[in-house]
Amino acid sequence: MDETRRIAVAYVESCEQRDWAAFEALLAEDVVYEMPQTRERISGRERFVRFNREYPGEWHLSVRRVVAEGLNAVVWMAVSVGSEQVDACVWLDLSESGRISRITDFWPEAYEPPAGREHLVERW
Amino acid sequence: MDETRRIAVAYVESCEQRDWAAFEALLAEDVVYEMPQTRERISGRERFVRFNREYPGEWHLSVRRVVAEGLNAVVWMAVSVGSEQVDACVWLDLSESGRISRITDFWPEAYEPPAGREHLVERW
Repeated sequence: MDETRRIAVAYVESCEQRDWAAFEALLAEDVVYEMPQTRERISGRERFVRFNREYPGEWHLSVRRVVAEGLNAVVWMAVSVGSEQVDACVWLDLSESGRISRITDFWPEAYEPPAGREHLVERW
Repeated sequence: MDETRRIAVAYVESCEQRDWAAFEALLAEDVVYEMPQTRERISGRERFVRFNREYPGEWHLSVRRVVAEGLNAVVWMAVSVGSEQVDACVWLDLSESGRISRITDFWPEAYEPPAGREHLVERW
């Protein structure tokens, strides 16, 4: 669990540092990356590293929280792209050899709340 | 961890079953529920149960995955509202007494992927 947590943190930090050698070393060769919101899948370490290297914009990542159990972890990331701030939830599965073999990313975007629940809710 | 997992699953299942007595029994009296996407917060068990009871639509919840560690868990929920399907990521914090004291919900919505990464990505 501590090792899973360490790997989850290193995944975010090596990406933030654009340390692509360190980032790649965390990944299984046949890693599968999925974004359910867009129904996109990237298969294989080489493509996935390239996807991150090529990702446009002035983006920055930091770890807000990690919950790790066995070979699984979930990371709550704070992401900034220019002046925009967004949270992401990243589900990581490790193989028995301790490499990241599956990644599922969720990118929840800000929206205006529906009417009808103002009596229960405060805004911040 | 097993107990945290059990509580996380019971949280979703009691809500799905509209078993509000069981749902309420899982919650700390001063539970705080937050939705970062809309910057909404609901404070207190009574309001939070009411929020769920009153939630409009023909909604259904099921657990897809749980990662639990100590007094923390993250649930990947499959949610259907009518014919619409969506995933949610729910971060749960338990108090020492084993009640859910903090809930952070993310509701990532479907969107069309940006252009420029078709060479790396397949759609499903």
